[in-house]
Amino acid sequence: MPLPPGLSAADFDNVCRELRSVVGEQWVVTADEKVASYHDPYFPGTGGQHLPSGAVLPASVEEIRAVLGIANRVRLPLWSVSLGRNYAYGGGAPCLDGSMVLDLKRMQGIEVNEQLAYAIVEPGVTFFQLYRHIQDKKYRLWISCPAPGWGSVLGNTLERGIGYTPHGDHAGQQCGMEVVLANGDVIRTGMGAMTDNPAWPLYRYSYGPSLDGLFMQSNLGVVTKIGVWLMPEPEMYSPVDIGVDREEDIVALIDTLRPLRLDGTIPTATIANWMRIVATQTTRAQWYDGKDAMPPGAIEKLKKTMRIPHWGLRFGLYGPIKVVDEKFKIVQKAFSSTGNARIARARYPRGAKIAPHHQAAAGIPDVELMPLNWMGGTGAHIECPPVVPMIGAQAYELYRERTALFASYGFDHYSGFTTTTPRTFFNTGSIIFDRSDPEMTGRARELSAALIRDAAKSRLGGYRGHISEMDLIAEQFDFNRHAAMRTYELLKDAMDPEGILSPGKQGIWPKALRTARREGERK
Amino acid sequence: MPLPPGLSAADFDNVCRELRSVVGEQWVVTADEKVASYHDPYFPGTGGQHLPSGAVLPASVEEIRAVLGIANRVRLPLWSVSLGRNYAYGGGAPCLDGSMVLDLKRMQGIEVNEQLAYAIVEPGVTFFQLYRHIQDKKYRLWISCPAPGWGSVLGNTLERGIGYTPHGDHAGQQCGMEVVLANGDVIRTGMGAMTDNPAWPLYRYSYGPSLDGLFMQSNLGVVTKIGVWLMPEPEMYSPVDIGVDREEDIVALIDTLRPLRLDGTIPTATIANWMRIVATQTTRAQWYDGKDAMPPGAIEKLKKTMRIPHWGLRFGLYGPIKVVDEKFKIVQKAFSSTGNARIARARYPRGAKIAPHHQAAAGIPDVELMPLNWMGGTGAHIECPPVVPMIGAQAYELYRERTALFASYGFDHYSGFTTTTPRTFFNTGSIIFDRSDPEMTGRARELSAALIRDAAKSRLGGYRGHISEMDLIAEQFDFNRHAAMRTYELLKDAMDPEGILSPGKQGIWPKALRTARREGERK
Repeated sequence: MPLPPGLSAADFDNVCRELRSVVGEQWVVTADEKVASYHDPYFPGTGGQHLPSGAVLPASVEEIRAVLGIANRVRLPLWSVSLGRNYAYGGGAPCLDGSMVLDLKRMQGIEVNEQLAYAIVEPGVTFFQLYRHIQDKKYRLWISCPAPGWGSVLGNTLERGIGYTPHGDHAGQQCGMEVVLANGDVIRTGMGAMTDNPAWPLYRYSYGPSLDGLFMQSNLGVVTKIGVWLMPEPEMYSPVDIGVDREEDIVALIDTLRPLRLDGTIPTATIANWMRIVATQTTRAQWYDGKDAMPPGAIEKLKKTMRIPHWGLRFGLYGPIKVVDEKFKIVQKAFSSTGNARIARARYPRGAKIAPHHQAAAGIPDVELMPLNWMGGTGAHIECPPVVPMIGAQAYELYRERTALFASYGFDHYSGFTTTTPRTFFNTGSIIFDRSDPEMTGRARELSAALIRDAAKSRLGGYRGHISEMDLIAEQFDFNRHAAMRTYELLKDAMDPEGILSPGKQGIWPKALRTARREGERK
Repeated sequence: MPLPPGLSAADFDNVCRELRSVVGEQWVVTADEKVASYHDPYFPGTGGQHLPSGAVLPASVEEIRAVLGIANRVRLPLWSVSLGRNYAYGGGAPCLDGSMVLDLKRMQGIEVNEQLAYAIVEPGVTFFQLYRHIQDKKYRLWISCPAPGWGSVLGNTLERGIGYTPHGDHAGQQCGMEVVLANGDVIRTGMGAMTDNPAWPLYRYSYGPSLDGLFMQSNLGVVTKIGVWLMPEPEMYSPVDIGVDREEDIVALIDTLRPLRLDGTIPTATIANWMRIVATQTTRAQWYDGKDAMPPGAIEKLKKTMRIPHWGLRFGLYGPIKVVDEKFKIVQKAFSSTGNARIARARYPRGAKIAPHHQAAAGIPDVELMPLNWMGGTGAHIECPPVVPMIGAQAYELYRERTALFASYGFDHYSGFTTTTPRTFFNTGSIIFDRSDPEMTGRARELSAALIRDAAKSRLGGYRGHISEMDLIAEQFDFNRHAAMRTYELLKDAMDPEGILSPGKQGIWPKALRTARREGERK
C-alpha cells in the first residue's frame, strides 16, 4: 500500500493511532487485504494507481469532525465514500495514490415520512435498506433506484445517479443536506439552516444562496444526511415496451418521444440498443468468433434468432387507472407511425405482483449487476455517458460515430439513451471487457478516453466519469479558458485550504497538487 | 443623495467620470430626480435609509467587467438589479446607503427554442417581452409569470419568484447561467462550462459541483444570462375554482389537496382567503369604519353580500383533453366531501380565448398590480412569506396566529397559500397600507417584523424578504449558531474580497461591514 503523500511510515503509524483513538481500534483499516477491498474492482490494472493507504470509518458527525481535525493538521488526503459502490466509475478507490478512504458506511440513519413522502438518509443506507424500511412500515411510497440495490442512496444521489421511475433524476429529488465542511463546521442547507424547521426536507431552496449543488460530485464537504423525495404509490403502474427494427428508426423514435416527454405524458424512459437488450441472455461467443467488433451480418442474425428489435424503448405510465389508460392511448397513437413499431404493455394495479423485468421502473431494487459476461472471462465495464440533447438526428449521428469508434478498438457497442430530465439523454456507451485480459483492458481504457475526446468534438460533455479520467473530462469544459474550473479551485482553496478532501475528484485539485499546466490556465 | 461609504464628493465625481468612460455619458445617473426612481416606491419612509448614490447601466458583459474593475479599486458598493421591479421587497433600492445601483435593464437578449422548449434571457427582458416574442414567432410555448408582467424574467427567477402554471416554481425551471464574478471572470454553469455545448439550457447539472444555486438571492456574482424551461402549449387548459365557507375548512381543503399535489394530478395551486379574493373588487371603507381590524361580523356580512367563500382554491389542469377530463373527475370526487365545497371549472381547448381572470394560470402576463386600495390613500404592501409544510392543521394554526397578529397592529389579514413545490406553501400575508400615512406605515413595518419573529417561533422561515428586514430574517436561521451564514460569509470573502457586490443582500455582508455581534457569532 502506498503512504499518504509527505508522510513517512512512522508518521502514518502515528496518524493511524490518533485516528483509532477517535473511531475505535477496528475502524481504522491498514492491513493490505482489507485495504484491497477499496480498490476499483473493475479496473485493478490501472498501472498501480488509485491505491489507498488505508481507510477510516467514523460512526458520527462528531467523529468525522475529529478525523478532519487530524487530517488538516498533517495534510492527510481523505477520499470520502458512502459505501464505495461507485462501480464503473472507480468503486471506492481514490484519485490520488495514498489517500485514506473516509468510509461512511457505519452511518445508517433512516427516517421516512409517509404523509409528506420523503426520507432522510445517512451515507450507509442502501437502496435495499430504504426499500425494506418502507415495506416493513407498510408505507404507500415508492423509491427510485438504479438496477442494483446494494449502493448508497446518498452516494448515488450525490453522484447524480439515476433510476427508472418518474423520480429517476435522483439529484432532482434531493431536498435538504447536512454537511461537515473541511474546517469542521456542520451546516444544514435550505430551511434546515433554521434549527428544527420542518420544511428542511420539503422545500429545496434557501433564504439566500442554495448550497446543495456545491456538494454534488464534489470535494468541498462531507455530506452526512440528505432528504430524498419519495413517490406515492400510484393506483396503476403500466410499463410500456416499444421496439423498432432498423438502426435508423431511432430518429423517429426520439422525435416521437420528445413532445411526450416534454408535456409529461412519459416520465423517465430508456432506449436500449440490440446489445443492451440481449446481453443478459447470451454472450458474444455464441454469435461471432472474430477479434474485431461483430459485423452487421452477425448482429442481424442474432436479432432475428433472439427475436429482438434493434432498439427498445421502455418507460412506465403511473397514476390513476383511467389517466394511465388515456395516456397509453396517446402513446399508442403517437408511436403507431414510427417505423414498424411494436408496442407492448402490462398493467399493474396497486398491490399486484410485478414481474421481475418490470421491477426497476417500480423502484424495486435488485441484486442484478450489469450483464458483464459478453466478452467472457472476468467481466467489467467502464462508462462516461455524455449529456445529449433529445433530438433524433443528433442522437443517431452520435451513435454511429461511437459505434465506429467502439469497432476501431475491437469492441461491440452497448448503448442506451436514458432520459431522466425532459430535454436530454445520458448516452451510456458501456465498454464491457474481460479484466483478466491485460491487452483487452488496455484497449478498453484507450477507447474510453477516445470516446470522451470524440464527444467533446461534438461539443458534448460527460455527466460523470471514472476516477482515472476525471481530469480528462474536466479538461473538455473549456468555456472562457476553463473558467468553471478556476471557480471550483477558488472555492476549493477557500473551503478546504489544506486540500484534505478527495483531491482530484471531478478534476478539482487542491492548490499544492495542481499541475503547472493547469496553473498556467488559471491566469 | 448619500455618497458611497468612504468616498468624498470629489472621489465620487472621479469614479463617475471613469464609469462614464466605460458605459457612455448618459448611462451613469447621479441627478437626484433620476436616482429617486430607484427608491423603494412602497417604502419611501424607511427612515432615510436604503438610498442609492447613483446608478450605472452597462450594456454588455465587457462593460460590466470594466465597471467591476473600477468598483474593486475604490471599493464602490454596487447593488445589482435586473429591472428593479422587486416591489414589496424593496424595488430597486439597496440595503446599504450610498450603494450605486448596477442596473442591467439595457441587456435585453432573448433566444427561444421551440423544439426543446426553452428560452435564454438577459436581465432586461420582461415577462411581457418574452411573451410577445413567443407570440410573434407563433411558437406553441407557454411562459410562467407572476401576475404583473413588467418585471424581469431573470430577476424574478433569481429571487425565486413564482407564477401560476405548472412551471410556477421559476427557480425550478432555470437551467444554465452566465455570471460575471466580482473578480471579472465570466463563467457559464452546467454544460455551458464547455464552449458551445448545446445542453447548456437543457441539462441543469454540471460535471462537478453545481454553481447555479450560489447566484440565487445572492451577492456572489452578477448574472447576465439564464436559461428558462418553457412549457409546450397544452391541448387543453382547464382552470378549477373550489370555494369553502368556513375558516376551519382550510384544514380539509389542504389535506385533500396534498395527495393530489404529490401525485401530480394538481400542479401549482393557490388558496386565497376572503380578503385576497375580494380586495380587487371593493375596499374596506365600504364595510367597516373602525380603526381596528375588521371584526368577524363585518367579514361575514361582506362574504354574504359579495357572495364569496372564506377560502378559494384555484389551479389549472393541463394536457390532452381526455387526460384533463379524467383528472377533473378525480378532483371533483376528492373535494366533494370537503366541507360544503363548491367546484367550478372552465375548459379552454388550444386556441380558445382565455378570460382575463384565468390568464395568470395560462402564463399570460398582465399589467395588474396587487389590489392596494383596501386601506385607501396611496396603497403599498410588504411581504415576507414563510415556507409552510402542506399539512392542514399546521397551516390553519399559523393562519389564526397571524390573523391575531395582524389584528393586534390594526390590519386585516390578506392571506394566500401558494404551492409551487409539491410539499410546501409560501404563505403570503400581505400587509396592505396607505404609505401616505406615516403612522400606518410605521405600524406596517412593526407588524412585518413581528410576523417574521412569530414564524420563527413556529420554526418557520421566510423564503424572501424586504431589504429592510433581510438581516432580521437571516438571523432566524440559527442552526449550529448560524452555520449557514458563516458559510455564506466564507464564500463572500473568497469570491468578493473587496465586498463590492450588493452588500447586505439576504443578510450577507462583506467582512468590513459585519457588525461586532455577527462577528461574535462566527466563532
